[in-house]
Amino acid sequence: MTAPEFSLAIHGGCGVLPRSTITEKFAADVRAALHASLAAGAAILRDGGSALDAVEAAVVVMEDAAVFNAGHGAAFNEAGGHELDAAIMDGRTLEAGAVTGARAMRNPIRVARGVMASGDFLLLQGDGADAFARHNGYDIVPQSYFGTDQRRQMLAEMKALAAEGQAVKANEAQKHGTVGAVARDRHGNLAAATSTGGYTNKPVGRVGDTPIVGAGTYANNATCAVSGTGKGEYFIRKVLAHEISARIQYLGHSLERATADMVAELRDWQCGAGVVAVDRYGNVTLPYNTEGMYRGSITSLKPASVAIYE
Amino acid sequence: MTAPEFSLAIHGGCGVLPRSTITEKFAADVRAALHASLAAGAAILRDGGSALDAVEAAVVVMEDAAVFNAGHGAAFNEAGGHELDAAIMDGRTLEAGAVTGARAMRNPIRVARGVMASGDFLLLQGDGADAFARHNGYDIVPQSYFGTDQRRQMLAEMKALAAEGQAVKANEAQKHGTVGAVARDRHGNLAAATSTGGYTNKPVGRVGDTPIVGAGTYANNATCAVSGTGKGEYFIRKVLAHEISARIQYLGHSLERATADMVAELRDWQCGAGVVAVDRYGNVTLPYNTEGMYRGSITSLKPASVAIYE
Repeated sequence: MTAPEFSLAIHGGCGVLPRSTITEKFAADVRAALHASLAAGAAILRDGGSALDAVEAAVVVMEDAAVFNAGHGAAFNEAGGHELDAAIMDGRTLEAGAVTGARAMRNPIRVARGVMASGDFLLLQGDGADAFARHNGYDIVPQSYFGTDQRRQMLAEMKALAAEGQAVKANEAQKHGTVGAVARDRHGNLAAATSTGGYTNKPVGRVGDTPIVGAGTYANNATCAVSGTGKGEYFIRKVLAHEISARIQYLGHSLERATADMVAELRDWQCGAGVVAVDRYGNVTLPYNTEGMYRGSITSLKPASVAIYE
Repeated sequence: MTAPEFSLAIHGGCGVLPRSTITEKFAADVRAALHASLAAGAAILRDGGSALDAVEAAVVVMEDAAVFNAGHGAAFNEAGGHELDAAIMDGRTLEAGAVTGARAMRNPIRVARGVMASGDFLLLQGDGADAFARHNGYDIVPQSYFGTDQRRQMLAEMKALAAEGQAVKANEAQKHGTVGAVARDRHGNLAAATSTGGYTNKPVGRVGDTPIVGAGTYANNATCAVSGTGKGEYFIRKVLAHEISARIQYLGHSLERATADMVAELRDWQCGAGVVAVDRYGNVTLPYNTEGMYRGSITSLKPASVAIYE
């Protein structure tokens, strides 16, 4: 089998709307946004650009799309506001950058890239993250930029369920959502990027797996690049993305086996979860244990394809 | 060789004062605080208490001691304030709790334990962390509680060095410090806890490895418990504590080899670093690559011992 010269896989979260309630319009918007994200990343990879640039570009498109829980369209927290998390990692150098609890930056993944480039620190939280964005000239937006009517309705639904003590009955779309991308470029370098608004009605200050290197985001040229989606606390406890890397490196597992095993382990913990991953050979895999996962992939050998359910 | 029935190892950071500048008084204060920390943890373990309770108790003593960079005595950030990080992890369940960017809680490790017990979320940042502490009745203190004259002097020194572009010349004590504990109890359960003020003159919002599960803090009954000290960004990039666990689990490395290899890898990255670790058999190890590390250990078979330099 010929190995692809470049590969890109993306997700818009495993918190999909149930098949029974999704509208044709919404599904079409999701597919269009996934295709636009793949196109943005693939254009860079096709021209010999870096995996790092490709995953950043792919995630920016999804942050700007209202249908995904990241950037514009981010989930509301319990206070009716938005706190955003993002991380990016370079598999060549193991450098990374991340922000958590950001409230004012339009594109958290761009700022995470800037944090990485700063070199001195890796993860900034809260006001410090937004101050870094302001100081370095990134786009600043009011909180109202992030909210959409759909997300506001989900907050009302979640608060109603919580008031009845029935929050566990919420569907995956009400609960969470994330966007992410992994890539291998023509030079053999891997990168991963993830961005999220967390989950609807989350406590102020809650940090999930997205900005945590090794949990929801990880890249290492020696093994793989991984971006996760699901209940972040479980990803953190499993150190999920790094665990996948370790099983490839030390147990010789294939990318497909290592990722499928971890997604199954999270199912055993009653945790809805999915990942997109690419290995050093350019293989891609997109396993999930929920009803669906907004997802897509493209390689030098295969045209872009996107999907929502099985 | 008989295995110990319980084990406890602690550190007060590898950011030790240079041997040439430390006073007898300061060294005596450090040794006394380390002994008090070991005594607090060992009393719990001796009575059949949990590793989790022991590491929390050991860290609380060090947070309250002015000589260590955690709680009272925490480093000043660039704005002349304090932002504290802490994490605790239960190797039996892989449950964890953590706080980052905390400004008002007296004992971050106690609040991290409370976050873990809450069950719903794992890591809280900034105002959300302090709000959790207030809401749940933890001790709240003004920022002035954390500062000491010694730390204020270090901030002045670091700002002077930074103004000259000579920040890299700072010594390990000026740069950073952390406290941590790992334990194995009579029931075979492991736990780890870490707490820090970060590094002197750090940017507002900067998060290090301490509150990141898998980086500076990790515990897993199947392998080991680890608490780190050093330049946190490197620990995060290496996913250091989880990497140690993976090498034990998948490569069959001993605790001593796995930790020594990682500390050596960080030296290759010009990163001052140390860890304390305990494995499932109760073996303890305390490697570091700096001039010294405030440290101590005790087991059911060996009396308490503390040290600063080699």
